[in-house]
Amino acid sequence: MTDAISLAEKLIAAPSVTPATGLVFDVMEAMLEPLGFEVHRFVKGEAPDGPVENLFAIRRGPDGSKHFAFAGHLDVVPPGEGWTSAPFAPERRGDLLYGRGAVDMKGSIASMVAAVAEVPAEAGTVSFIITGDEEGPAVYGTRALIDFMQERGETPDLCLVGEPTSVNQLGDMMKIGRRGSVNIWLEVEGTQGHVAYPHLADNPLPKLVAILAELDALVLDEGTNWFQPSNLEITDLEVGNPAHNVIPAVAKARISIRFNDTHSGASLSETVSAIAEKHGGVAKPVISGEPFLTPPGEFSQIIADAVKAETGIDPEPSTTGGTSDARFLRAVCPVIEFGLCNATMHKRDEAVAMADLETLAKIYARIAKAVLG
Amino acid sequence: MTDAISLAEKLIAAPSVTPATGLVFDVMEAMLEPLGFEVHRFVKGEAPDGPVENLFAIRRGPDGSKHFAFAGHLDVVPPGEGWTSAPFAPERRGDLLYGRGAVDMKGSIASMVAAVAEVPAEAGTVSFIITGDEEGPAVYGTRALIDFMQERGETPDLCLVGEPTSVNQLGDMMKIGRRGSVNIWLEVEGTQGHVAYPHLADNPLPKLVAILAELDALVLDEGTNWFQPSNLEITDLEVGNPAHNVIPAVAKARISIRFNDTHSGASLSETVSAIAEKHGGVAKPVISGEPFLTPPGEFSQIIADAVKAETGIDPEPSTTGGTSDARFLRAVCPVIEFGLCNATMHKRDEAVAMADLETLAKIYARIAKAVLG
Ligand SMILES: [Zn+2]
Ligand SMILES: [Zn+2]
Repeated sequence: MTDAISLAEKLIAAPSVTPATGLVFDVMEAMLEPLGFEVHRFVKGEAPDGPVENLFAIRRGPDGSKHFAFAGHLDVVPPGEGWTSAPFAPERRGDLLYGRGAVDMKGSIASMVAAVAEVPAEAGTVSFIITGDEEGPAVYGTRALIDFMQERGETPDLCLVGEPTSVNQLGDMMKIGRRGSVNIWLEVEGTQGHVAYPHLADNPLPKLVAILAELDALVLDEGTNWFQPSNLEITDLEVGNPAHNVIPAVAKARISIRFNDTHSGASLSETVSAIAEKHGGVAKPVISGEPFLTPPGEFSQIIADAVKAETGIDPEPSTTGGTSDARFLRAVCPVIEFGLCNATMHKRDEAVAMADLETLAKIYARIAKAVLG
Repeated sequence: MTDAISLAEKLIAAPSVTPATGLVFDVMEAMLEPLGFEVHRFVKGEAPDGPVENLFAIRRGPDGSKHFAFAGHLDVVPPGEGWTSAPFAPERRGDLLYGRGAVDMKGSIASMVAAVAEVPAEAGTVSFIITGDEEGPAVYGTRALIDFMQERGETPDLCLVGEPTSVNQLGDMMKIGRRGSVNIWLEVEGTQGHVAYPHLADNPLPKLVAILAELDALVLDEGTNWFQPSNLEITDLEVGNPAHNVIPAVAKARISIRFNDTHSGASLSETVSAIAEKHGGVAKPVISGEPFLTPPGEFSQIIADAVKAETGIDPEPSTTGGTSDARFLRAVCPVIEFGLCNATMHKRDEAVAMADLETLAKIYARIAKAVLG
């Protein structure tokens, strides 16, 4: 089998703090072309949300064959300080390979490439949907890739995203869905005045407090079969009034809601707006992602079987945690996320067990073969 | 009668943004010495709350005579922008005299000096308790003057503070008391975390909201015969969390309470602390002043009679508005505040009706004579 570890090293050695372009995509292209892939690369966007490079690679199977897609990102979060070895100089120490992106998710992408080398071209169509901006604003990333694919009529039947979903050991968790996310800015305007003459002022702070108290008391739902209960957090308060004797004119707050598929970003925005307006405030929502669910079925079973065969573990189908680009890909076809252990993701001394890279390549190969049938 | 208007002009022409020292006190001393006053001046304090100049002047009457004190301040708030004429170049336009301090309260002090010129020395003891810091932190101002007087055994029987208490026309209001004032800083500490994993965090914001909601719902009292109900205002909120996905570690707020004589600064601090602690927070109070009341009686009647005689108006005895140095002087003897119209105080184009300066001098002279009488 192709050596997933040395592929991971090559990817890690190409620095690619989000948003990424250039070198790391050259490395990726050089891996895919020998395997028979037609590689498309394009750069989109301007500062500050870009430029972002994206790569779509496809190896077509016989007419009428199925199309299985691997998706992921080559950008990484900034390394930060305090690494034992240089973050973009991959280093093997003991059983681990160290470097920024080792688990999130250059390691997974290396395992995907190693896996595909094992899948006969005549088994069916395989593609790679790889962006340079998943860790950043994600404005010019996977969304642009989906547009690119749609223009060309490329529609996978199933898609596997290589995010590091495993928790304690490789294979213990896959993500069959993700909660949606909406941030809502709340603002109440009043009339400034002096605390000694409150009848001449209109203090916006008690109104904001009333809004927040009512929002904090909301029970959005009790959870579903596959989702935990939706959750609302108050994340910021802002008045900025240094004058002890002054009633300020404006009060602001921000909340963040992670929600399951009993809601939509729009329905929650309406609920919050109604509460804000009742108390004289205004709500400005920014929806980051709608929830999605690929209900347990044939696809999750294929993944579970592959994991079980290579590790002996039954992966738990979960919908916990943050968002990922699966929130966009769900519009194209059923999506499940499965990848490495996430303990060191986004941390200093990010590292992957080298054995896991090889095992993951075998799991991915099993999945691709089973999907293509 | 001595010309109160030209005395006011001389005081206004000496710039004295708070805290004040020097020139404006030289001018004051030059007015009082010819009237037979023994003038004491001293400077106290260091930056940032000082240095502050204070003046105590006394003209002793016969042994056993009464002691009446005029109190006030020669410092002024900064003029700010946009004046029609230079703020420290007094200018007569129409019926008005313009300049910073015209009503608050160099004009009143000029009327006091003009009044005293009419009071025979043998009528009794008259003093001036004049600070250079009433508009600022007031740490080294009237409190230091009170210490100075106590060391020398000078204790007035009654004290009139010349704050601009009139509202629509000279004489319509005197202040027989003032509410107390306390500012309280509230803080709740939690544990920072990611909004997607709230069980790993401890969000302090809902706790702060609960504290504020409970404080806002408090009914402190229903008011008294002489005081309006005590009032609590939320004046600031502060978290300063720019990260949409982060639950912050600390949340802060500030409240300001103006309270009547059914409370003390300490009793309110205890009430607020108990509510804060119930929800996991901490309260840090800073008491600016306790409430005081000089109940209507002989002194207020003397003032009312003098006002009525010169203006035909019955002054309303009030306890509304902000704090003044009367909060300190109350410890020495009964205090009432009475002075010019306050419409332009602390504003640009501060101005006094010149006729009011002359009328106020006559009222002050009547009051002094009646008190000593
Ligand atoms: Zn990732
Ligand atoms: Zn004043």
